[in-house]
Formats: sequence, C-alpha cells, structure tokens
Amino acid sequence: MKTALLLIAHGSRQAEANDDLHDLADRLRSTNRYAIVQPAFLELAEPSIDEAGRGCVEQGAQRVILLPYFLSAGVHVRRDLQTYRDRLARTFPAVMFALAEPLGPHALLVEIVTERAAEAEAGFTE
Amino acid sequence: MKTALLLIAHGSRQAEANDDLHDLADRLRSTNRYAIVQPAFLELAEPSIDEAGRGCVEQGAQRVILLPYFLSAGVHVRRDLQTYRDRLARTFPAVMFALAEPLGPHALLVEIVTERAAEAEAGFTE
Repeated sequence: MKTALLLIAHGSRQAEANDDLHDLADRLRSTNRYAIVQPAFLELAEPSIDEAGRGCVEQGAQRVILLPYFLSAGVHVRRDLQTYRDRLARTFPAVMFALAEPLGPHALLVEIVTERAAEAEAGFTE
Repeated sequence: MKTALLLIAHGSRQAEANDDLHDLADRLRSTNRYAIVQPAFLELAEPSIDEAGRGCVEQGAQRVILLPYFLSAGVHVRRDLQTYRDRLARTFPAVMFALAEPLGPHALLVEIVTERAAEAEAGFTE
C-alpha cells in the first residue's frame, strides 16, 4: 500500500516561510516512513493542494494523508481543508484521502516552547 | 530573579484558536519553571503585548521572555515583535526583555507530524 503524506502549510509571500515546509518535507523523507512526502500550500504559494494531491496520485499513491502544518486549525481552515479532501476523493475515487489533525495541542509543543524560552533566557546573562 | 514568560500568538476572531494559547499557558504554569506565564496576542484578541508586558512588570517580573508561538516568524512578524520588545524595554528600563525564536524548525515538530499522520493513517483501516 503506497501512502503519501501531503503536508499543507498556509503559504506566505515570503520564500523563507515556505522553505520551512520544504525543509520539513526533507526531514520526513529521510525517515523513509512514507513513500511520498509532498508539500502544498493553502494560498500564496505553489503547489496548490489540488495540484499536489494529483501529483501524489500520479506517483502511485493509493492513500493520501492531508496533514495541516498549523498550530491550530480554526473553523475556516478546517472547512477549507475538508473541502479539498472531499474534492480530491471525488476526483480520484480509487484513492483514499484522510485529513489529519493540526499539530496542537500537543505535549511536545510545551517542550519546544520551554527550550526556546531557555535559549532566550541564556541571553540575559551573556 | 523573577522571570516572566510572555507567550505571543497571532490572535484570532475565533475564541477556540485563542483558547489554545491559554491552555498552553496553563500547561507551562504547571511546570513551575517560570514565576509568571502570561498569554498575549499580536492582533484580534486581548490582551495586547503591551498590556501583557506591563502586567508582567506589575507582578514583579525582573526579566520577561517574549516567546512567539508561531511555527515560523516571517520578516513582518519578527519586526513587529522586535518593535514591541524595544518599546517595553524603553518603558520599563529596570526590566530586561528578550525576544525568543519561534518554534520551528525543530526536530520535535517532525515527531508531532509523524504522530498526527499515524493517527490519520489508522483511520484508513477502520
């Protein structure tokens, strides 16, 4: 079963913000957990979710996980992402599409915040 | 030395998105690592960064860490946050203010994404 991980960020006009998603995709590829790891953007950057989803199918994905790379997904983002999932599922009926939960809340986010705070705190005594 | 952790999210018109930051603040308070843990929002929600920063000082903070609860901080967000930090530092010259880095990129984010993907993947076989 060939599974694709479709990482979805909001998208930005700033290349550096979009680069973060590409870097994350590289890190996830290096885990070899998913046959395909594909970045996509809700807006302001390419590829779109439709285009990236099609790309996953063309690469042979039988299952595609749409993963919102958002700390939280409000009503609007969640609805938009569900719409994309449903449209992809209609367009490619032989392929399964699932929409994952956004990153937060998650205990590891507390760890990351604590680490970032400690780094900044170290700067006080420099 | 009394240190405050000032958590800063973008802010949303949706209460549930802002609640995430309050939940994170609760989790961080329970670690007892910082004397004060104070949420604030860049826009669309209260308290503002100025107001929250003042609140930390009034509670006796001698050092305040402004922590961007963002996956990444583009040029605009970073500049805005730096402006808030500098203004607080000018207003309260006896208090030290430091601006921390945003959450990403971070290896633990890869772990969270992997976990969210696995949860969604489990749904395929239900």
